[in-house]
Amino acid sequence: MIQIAVLGYGTVGSGVVEVIEKNKAMVNEKAADELNIKYILDLREFPGDKYEHKVVHDVNMIMEDEEISIICETMGGVGAAYEFTKMALERGKSVCTSNKELVATHGPELLEIAHAHNCNYLFEASVGGGIPIIRPLNYSLTAEVIESISGILNGTTNYILTKMEKEGASFDAVLRKAQEKGYAERKPEADIEGYDTCRKVAILSSLMLGKTVDYKKIYTEGITRISYGDILYAKETGRTIKLLGLSKRMGDKVFAMVAPFMIGQENPLHMVEGVFNAVCVRGNMLGDSMYYGQGAGKLPTASAVVSDVIDCARHLGKVIMCFWSREKAELVNMGEVEHKFFLRVKPSACEALEMMFKDCKKIEIPGRGEDVGYFTESMKEKDFADRCALLGEAVLGRIRVE
Amino acid sequence: MIQIAVLGYGTVGSGVVEVIEKNKAMVNEKAADELNIKYILDLREFPGDKYEHKVVHDVNMIMEDEEISIICETMGGVGAAYEFTKMALERGKSVCTSNKELVATHGPELLEIAHAHNCNYLFEASVGGGIPIIRPLNYSLTAEVIESISGILNGTTNYILTKMEKEGASFDAVLRKAQEKGYAERKPEADIEGYDTCRKVAILSSLMLGKTVDYKKIYTEGITRISYGDILYAKETGRTIKLLGLSKRMGDKVFAMVAPFMIGQENPLHMVEGVFNAVCVRGNMLGDSMYYGQGAGKLPTASAVVSDVIDCARHLGKVIMCFWSREKAELVNMGEVEHKFFLRVKPSACEALEMMFKDCKKIEIPGRGEDVGYFTESMKEKDFADRCALLGEAVLGRIRVE
Repeated sequence: MIQIAVLGYGTVGSGVVEVIEKNKAMVNEKAADELNIKYILDLREFPGDKYEHKVVHDVNMIMEDEEISIICETMGGVGAAYEFTKMALERGKSVCTSNKELVATHGPELLEIAHAHNCNYLFEASVGGGIPIIRPLNYSLTAEVIESISGILNGTTNYILTKMEKEGASFDAVLRKAQEKGYAERKPEADIEGYDTCRKVAILSSLMLGKTVDYKKIYTEGITRISYGDILYAKETGRTIKLLGLSKRMGDKVFAMVAPFMIGQENPLHMVEGVFNAVCVRGNMLGDSMYYGQGAGKLPTASAVVSDVIDCARHLGKVIMCFWSREKAELVNMGEVEHKFFLRVKPSACEALEMMFKDCKKIEIPGRGEDVGYFTESMKEKDFADRCALLGEAVLGRIRVE
Repeated sequence: MIQIAVLGYGTVGSGVVEVIEKNKAMVNEKAADELNIKYILDLREFPGDKYEHKVVHDVNMIMEDEEISIICETMGGVGAAYEFTKMALERGKSVCTSNKELVATHGPELLEIAHAHNCNYLFEASVGGGIPIIRPLNYSLTAEVIESISGILNGTTNYILTKMEKEGASFDAVLRKAQEKGYAERKPEADIEGYDTCRKVAILSSLMLGKTVDYKKIYTEGITRISYGDILYAKETGRTIKLLGLSKRMGDKVFAMVAPFMIGQENPLHMVEGVFNAVCVRGNMLGDSMYYGQGAGKLPTASAVVSDVIDCARHLGKVIMCFWSREKAELVNMGEVEHKFFLRVKPSACEALEMMFKDCKKIEIPGRGEDVGYFTESMKEKDFADRCALLGEAVLGRIRVE
């Protein structure tokens, strides 16, 4: 029997307990042993809960129990979660986590500690919820040089953008509704400002390169400035607006960013709607492959944590390969990167705009007098920003085009 | 250094050599050792080929060379490929293959032999070409009870259906063009009659259940009866026609089939066009996830074979888990399975049809006099077939609706 502890009995933590319980037969067969949850660490009490008797408040009980060989860290944050993870790994206990913030911040250090102690630090659930993406990158696409990764990595923002598109509603109205329904947090910044996507891009980029991409250096723009006007022009041209996390190999540097993009129907991410997530990976032999599914939610995320537990159970005392060193990856200067752009301006600015952007394509929506849309040619970020500055308040919307 | 032999220097075999050569640094890093191709087995000579000096004609040279620890079987067929694979595994040499026919026919026996000799039989490339799907099923979705798998598993048929839809061309015309361009074989039966998809469904179903699904028992219908008329009605109702391979757990039995289906835009397979493949997996915790990419082609397929080689290299002397026993899975009787159906009939048959199919929905395309379309309610296959028989030659087209 393999003894497990769960740190944090919130949404994901209770999901982990539920998955192990509900799929017991399958999970034990795959783990080649019986898994038993011995402790659940939480500051709170859970009177009446089926697993009330497993709840403990002192992490040392878990750390000092030599029977415990695998720990699920589902607390979140980079404070206690970091300390507890280190403590566990230093004692040779493998840790499986859904904590993207911790992985993005201390991933390579924790991997080093794990490997020095013949145990593992696994984090399939930290990106894309239940969608297998970390394991395909680490074990499946091993014959590839990965050239780029692009993804819709946050369900809340994708839900908001989809609702705005389908219902013609404003950002604020959709956000309020999403909060009422529990699809968005009461403090929604981490999602809508792109911070959550940024952490995930940092993890995927680091795995792509085998080096560390510092999430603090990734240009990150959320969806708060997207208006229904922008969406109308996207629709008019067969496109849709998605918050993308991007990462591309450029020589020995990497370009990474988080921003809303207009994407066309030829891009497989076009069809990813609502709370679904998807990750596109381009390899130099395989070309494009995509991984799609529910990127969040209690059971999908817990399922990914449990798949890591099973992997740890099958590799007790052995190190599972993961290429992610502490060496820092160098990021390409944002201003030098080229994109096409969509611009939505007041009609009065058309003449000035057309002089500044030589080869742009004008889009007019019949019966709509308040704005005009333009698609520019591919140009450097800094050149685009400079010209937009000259147009000043006549610019009503601007979005990159993929 | 790990010594490798490639059996069969055709499209995939030469791709394997190319991938190992081109991505040498990455491949060796991931394999944690240097991979070297020592022999290439083929009956032909390859004068002037860069690897001409590695070509041998006698398989015993490979089998008797104790240095060889991994073999890539890229010959195809179930004759010599079967014999050579058994010989290799019995000598403790791991085998990686793209040969779906052999895996579907002798998979569990070959897995048993491999495991008895502490080596591995891996077949990521046998389904979905370069798309990682076998490894996600075996290692990633381990916490799930897989409820169903559905996929577009053959690039040739998907290319033909996409072309028919986009160009309004007939099946025969598109097939001829595809043959000229090399997208379809000169003997296209394996693809267009669904046999290739059938083998792949058998493999996926077997991995889903851990038992053996006999491909000969899978109901298989190809795309040769699809006409542009059917496609018109699909378009008219926002649907598209795809050749699907399906497998569903039904109690302790399994339902598996291969047939063209009309699918709506809510199905993520809707957007899979041209030579692309995709596999949807429904798990009881994760819900739907999808794996998408190039399902065929030299380098994508070779990339999957090489990812298996890397896995074998990292597990020399160790058995990699794979749950697929010889125990036969029981298949549900086709006639008892329920579907909705699309029917296209001569206008003269409308009255009779509407009496037989009570709750059907009629679709008329303005200006089109030669046929009328109907969507039935969900009903048993055998009831549908019985009623169609009564309509006789008035039935111009019939397609299941997913």
